[in-house]
Amino acid sequence: MFELNERLAADTFEVCDLAVSKVLLMNDTAYPWLILVPMQNGVVELADLNEQDQQTLMTEMVQVSEVLKELTGAHKMNVATLGNVVSQLHVHVIARFEDDAAWPAPVWGKTKAIPYGAQAQAKFVEVLQQKLA
Amino acid sequence: MFELNERLAADTFEVCDLAVSKVLLMNDTAYPWLILVPMQNGVVELADLNEQDQQTLMTEMVQVSEVLKELTGAHKMNVATLGNVVSQLHVHVIARFEDDAAWPAPVWGKTKAIPYGAQAQAKFVEVLQQKLA
Repeated sequence: MFELNERLAADTFEVCDLAVSKVLLMNDTAYPWLILVPMQNGVVELADLNEQDQQTLMTEMVQVSEVLKELTGAHKMNVATLGNVVSQLHVHVIARFEDDAAWPAPVWGKTKAIPYGAQAQAKFVEVLQQKLA
Repeated sequence: MFELNERLAADTFEVCDLAVSKVLLMNDTAYPWLILVPMQNGVVELADLNEQDQQTLMTEMVQVSEVLKELTGAHKMNVATLGNVVSQLHVHVIARFEDDAAWPAPVWGKTKAIPYGAQAQAKFVEVLQQKLA
């Protein structure tokens, strides 16, 4: 059974499962920020996925990126797998704006997360679920 | 004809062309750092590539990442497309070490680039060309 890393679980809300990835919403209202986690234990690098799952992951990265861009009107999408802190393979998909808190720098480590209120979070997750279904 | 962004050109050395991407070596000895640039004008987001080129790009991201990891013995590979400063689509593939200058933070904006000497650069490019051929 797939086990989501504890820190990823603590920092996010679940949105939905795609074919390869679980989609999570980062609990930070500073940026519309999703995370894709391939639902396989022990996967750290992209190369740890088999070739077909790598290809499906790319499709999901593009799909999620496009949905988030369309929903938010972002100026640029940032798509990245770093994993220096949490090694479980996860891909950040972040909607960036020219007036956001970190622009043009990457978002990591720039600002303290500003959590969602319960209602805003539930509503955003619902919209995302509809768009990604 | 494909035109490489001037800033990308200025900051890097050319390594080789793969099926979709031009491979560049970032001129910063602080990190073994390659950049893949799909050789198509006007491409900004992953979604701007057609589906087949997206899939080939993923294959190239994994290949280049694996080659760089094997050559350097990196602890973790960082693979990211940001594009907040240079909008031409480009994918960073960076070999990270637990004792590098930015660890565990992302590398961008952390340290001033330390350029390669001519000999070290030529040698690294040659090794990369052999491995990626």
